[in-house]
Amino acid sequence: MDIGLIGLGKMGGNMRTRLREGGHTVVGYDRNPDLSDVESLEELVGKLPSPKVVWVMVPAGDPTRETIKALGELLGEGDLVVDGGNSKWTDDQINADLLAQKGVGFVDCGVSGGVWGLKNGYALMCGGSDEDVAKVQPAFDTLKPEGESGFVHAGKKVGAGHFSKMVHNGIEYAIMQSYAEGWELLEKVDLVDNVTDVFDSWREGTVIRSWLLDLLVEALKQDTHLDKISGYAEDSGEGRWTVEAAIDNAVPMNVIAASLFARFVSRQDESPAMKAIAAMRNQFGGHAVRTQPPAGGDAPTKD
Amino acid sequence: MDIGLIGLGKMGGNMRTRLREGGHTVVGYDRNPDLSDVESLEELVGKLPSPKVVWVMVPAGDPTRETIKALGELLGEGDLVVDGGNSKWTDDQINADLLAQKGVGFVDCGVSGGVWGLKNGYALMCGGSDEDVAKVQPAFDTLKPEGESGFVHAGKKVGAGHFSKMVHNGIEYAIMQSYAEGWELLEKVDLVDNVTDVFDSWREGTVIRSWLLDLLVEALKQDTHLDKISGYAEDSGEGRWTVEAAIDNAVPMNVIAASLFARFVSRQDESPAMKAIAAMRNQFGGHAVRTQPPAGGDAPTKD
Amino acid sequence: MDIGLIGLGKMGGNMRTRLREGGHTVVGYDRNPDLSDVESLEELVGKLPSPKVVWVMVPAGDPTRETIKALGELLGEGDLVVDGGNSKWTDDQINADLLAQKGVGFVDCGVSGGVWGLKNGYALMCGGSDEDVAKVQPAFDTLKPEGESGFVHAGKKVGAGHFSKMVHNGIEYAIMQSYAEGWELLEKVDLVDNVTDVFDSWREGTVIRSWLLDLLVEALKQDTHLDKISGYAEDSGEGRWTVEAAIDNAVPMNVIAASLFARFVSRQDESPAMKAIAAMRNQFGGHAVRTQPPAGGDAPTKD
Amino acid sequence: MDIGLIGLGKMGGNMRTRLREGGHTVVGYDRNPDLSDVESLEELVGKLPSPKVVWVMVPAGDPTRETIKALGELLGEGDLVVDGGNSKWTDDQINADLLAQKGVGFVDCGVSGGVWGLKNGYALMCGGSDEDVAKVQPAFDTLKPEGESGFVHAGKKVGAGHFSKMVHNGIEYAIMQSYAEGWELLEKVDLVDNVTDVFDSWREGTVIRSWLLDLLVEALKQDTHLDKISGYAEDSGEGRWTVEAAIDNAVPMNVIAASLFARFVSRQDESPAMKAIAAMRNQFGGHAVRTQPPAGGDAPTKD
Repeated sequence: MDIGLIGLGKMGGNMRTRLREGGHTVVGYDRNPDLSDVESLEELVGKLPSPKVVWVMVPAGDPTRETIKALGELLGEGDLVVDGGNSKWTDDQINADLLAQKGVGFVDCGVSGGVWGLKNGYALMCGGSDEDVAKVQPAFDTLKPEGESGFVHAGKKVGAGHFSKMVHNGIEYAIMQSYAEGWELLEKVDLVDNVTDVFDSWREGTVIRSWLLDLLVEALKQDTHLDKISGYAEDSGEGRWTVEAAIDNAVPMNVIAASLFARFVSRQDESPAMKAIAAMRNQFGGHAVRTQPPAGGDAPTKD
Repeated sequence: MDIGLIGLGKMGGNMRTRLREGGHTVVGYDRNPDLSDVESLEELVGKLPSPKVVWVMVPAGDPTRETIKALGELLGEGDLVVDGGNSKWTDDQINADLLAQKGVGFVDCGVSGGVWGLKNGYALMCGGSDEDVAKVQPAFDTLKPEGESGFVHAGKKVGAGHFSKMVHNGIEYAIMQSYAEGWELLEKVDLVDNVTDVFDSWREGTVIRSWLLDLLVEALKQDTHLDKISGYAEDSGEGRWTVEAAIDNAVPMNVIAASLFARFVSRQDESPAMKAIAAMRNQFGGHAVRTQPPAGGDAPTKD
Repeated sequence: MDIGLIGLGKMGGNMRTRLREGGHTVVGYDRNPDLSDVESLEELVGKLPSPKVVWVMVPAGDPTRETIKALGELLGEGDLVVDGGNSKWTDDQINADLLAQKGVGFVDCGVSGGVWGLKNGYALMCGGSDEDVAKVQPAFDTLKPEGESGFVHAGKKVGAGHFSKMVHNGIEYAIMQSYAEGWELLEKVDLVDNVTDVFDSWREGTVIRSWLLDLLVEALKQDTHLDKISGYAEDSGEGRWTVEAAIDNAVPMNVIAASLFARFVSRQDESPAMKAIAAMRNQFGGHAVRTQPPAGGDAPTKD
Repeated sequence: MDIGLIGLGKMGGNMRTRLREGGHTVVGYDRNPDLSDVESLEELVGKLPSPKVVWVMVPAGDPTRETIKALGELLGEGDLVVDGGNSKWTDDQINADLLAQKGVGFVDCGVSGGVWGLKNGYALMCGGSDEDVAKVQPAFDTLKPEGESGFVHAGKKVGAGHFSKMVHNGIEYAIMQSYAEGWELLEKVDLVDNVTDVFDSWREGTVIRSWLLDLLVEALKQDTHLDKISGYAEDSGEGRWTVEAAIDNAVPMNVIAASLFARFVSRQDESPAMKAIAAMRNQFGGHAVRTQPPAGGDAPTKD
């Protein structure tokens, strides 16, 4: 099929390649002229046959909103926009309504796959009407992995795709934290001779074998004690939105929330909360207050 | 090789089968004569050539200790006992010392695989000296899965195997909880048309693909909303021991601990802690106290 | 001072009483004519001298918004509205802007005190300009407790009051949960002869003495094992908003979040997440699945 | 009464003073001759009339065990030892049995009060038989605060006192963390002009007023943003034992456990777990890995 693709960064660029390898005609646009096939959105839209399908792959929030507004000016009745970025699911209905004024359809699509997607395919979770999804199905079929899984039309309401992808990322945070806690314990206790070998052994026959485990083992083989890496983790919006959605819906979510909070902590030079703890301890117990944390400090003390 | 196998329940019975299919000569003993190859431990030991290797596969705690004591009476210099049960790793050195008095070696081995092990192989994590491990290596090679992973000699100190298996189980609890929280949120929000399809789609191309995900999808295909299943989960000792080891070693473990606590909660008809919360709210706010929880009740109230 | 008071429920009615006992002239309005001093908002506004001060004490959300809109029609330049309800702090600027169009000032005020406020005074946290706060200060001085604490002009930006009250409630959730967890443990272990006596003893000399402890002891003296109370706890919006604000600001909040989630769990007849856990365990281990949770069930099992 | 007191450090020294001010005859022993009234345990025991009562106030674990062993050699039928240190409750029965061989009674007593105890009295939670507790009651009556609370004979089984004190400390951890999390949020959001004033205002009329709040306000008045204090908190054994006891008894304890883990994190220069998270993110997403955490970093990123 013919498809316009806006945003040719790490993700979008690889998706263009995979689509072309799958036989599709892709017109790509990026603000960076070195990456772009055309000079403007107008030119991109002009090159597409009707009904036109444009896939937006730009950062969530304002960039996506501005792009969709611009497309609303350029597209018309029967055309379709796919938002494949990491948009918050609550943005989707707003974007769909904006386009619906011009008779333009909308499909939201959460995309997973990272740098591996070009080769292995991208997991796709989309939301929208059957009619709208059908218009972009040939591209979905090429982008997805080869097996039976990897694509789902999650719901007929727009937002269902990004919501599913958001929950996927929340789960991802917690699974990563699960392995990380176990690794820290094995590293800390002087009993296992080679922790990497233990993790490697778990890749077959165990209950916890997974792709994330494979990746962690890969990393450990390169840097056994992760000496070269800093214990600092960003978080994407999806993790936050997952916990917010849980709260809005009275769903208990201790594990995913704790994983998110662990990332917040990892980015703090010093914890204000723990300063408050130290201050209270000092007030009631005359406990010495440190200005520099010492090395070690694992043994419990007398309170 | 020739090997004695004590305990022929769900796990031990299948292991006997896999060992025999691998060409080993297994003499099995179980208290249940319908399962047992021999009538007594004495007979079992008598049938083994020296150096004798006996694999113990009975419940952790007293049954394992009693079995090892009995074997200590029957075995001698150069023989070897493998504890393949779910023993606490701190038991291992005690058991090893007990056998060492008679010159009998000891290897601890954590075994994972459940009902799938017979067909796919068992993941094995063992601890002990190189010499002792070598004596049972032919059996390990048969029991493990066919690929490169699935077996590890985790440490030369006894206990390293059970400790590794314990951490494996702690990680397992938290990964299960990760999927479970995500599933609950997707089920609760009226946006995704078919949650099972979403989970199924995640099996390829996503960051969170895993064997546990495969199993959960299998369960959801049989019972879409899990109506036939009760939200009640036992816990094995390993989950508890993992958190205890973390505490002993000052390792933060929010996610695994929360997963363990969620299982405790699942087994309570009513939460004493939440009774205390309700009592306090009643005292300070005159909030009505319920004697029967109502259906629903998700909307926040005025405090 | 003269003050209008809208909403004469449990909180508003007692506040009217305390204000009148403090010498103020209060004109109260409530939709329930049995409680109301006047028949309409128009009549209420008509009875107040200029500059008119009206305190709104109705449920957060739509009721407060509608009341403020109506007051915007009735009040004018130099008049003032206080929102003393449990509004979300993000509503405050919207309400202030709405009133500012008519030259009407706005102060947001978080109010704590429950059924004890009439006698002991209400803790007040307000936000707004110095000028606006000054207009209602005489009422604040009467409503607050007698000591030096109990009132704060938290910030000159509107919303500062409700934000402070919101965080107060988040802290409250977690402190309650702290005592509740301790109580459950003491009740469970067969070692302490009289748990109520232990809690009662903590009321003097300990680090954890507090008003909430006093209340819990009061409740325990009436119902030693809380047999008459259900372990069911509602949550107010403030707890949820506190965690949401933490997430928006990358503040780790494990303890308050866990307290909120515990309330969600307390309202579930059965946990969907734990159904998913049970389903996974059944798939990999052949663990029996229960249709009815048994009594007890504290001992760990073999996994 | 006449009483021997072993261990005259920060706690023991003040307790000697308070006992003497209450009219008791105290013979104190400390390894530091500058603090000690006598030169040896033998001399201490020799100075006491029968039945002799000796209060041990030395560090938990080996020092307490050694002291009790030594006293077992020196005391006899009808004498009594009180362990007022922070011993683990499971040590108590062992110590009691050791002394019972000589006919010496044993009472365990958890003591709270910190540097404030001398003036305000110590909260005391003790375990032991009615007969044994009665022998030391006059000292308890002097050491405790003046009001009705502050002393409890928690149980007739030894260990009940230390167990109660242990749970007290667990609750204390979580209450401190509750305030700390709220403080961090108020500090972070640019809305409240003076966070100390807000906390100060909460000291009257609110649900969360407490002694710990008083102490935190005191600290904030001295150092508004806690710039002079490090976010580093030790933990005493009691917090760890509380969570372990919860696990042993299948009691969910999310809040107290999270408070304990927060202290562990506060003592880490860098989190091994978060290194593992960063390593996995790098593997699947090509996310840049930092060798130095940057300042700030609160905004979510694209995953």
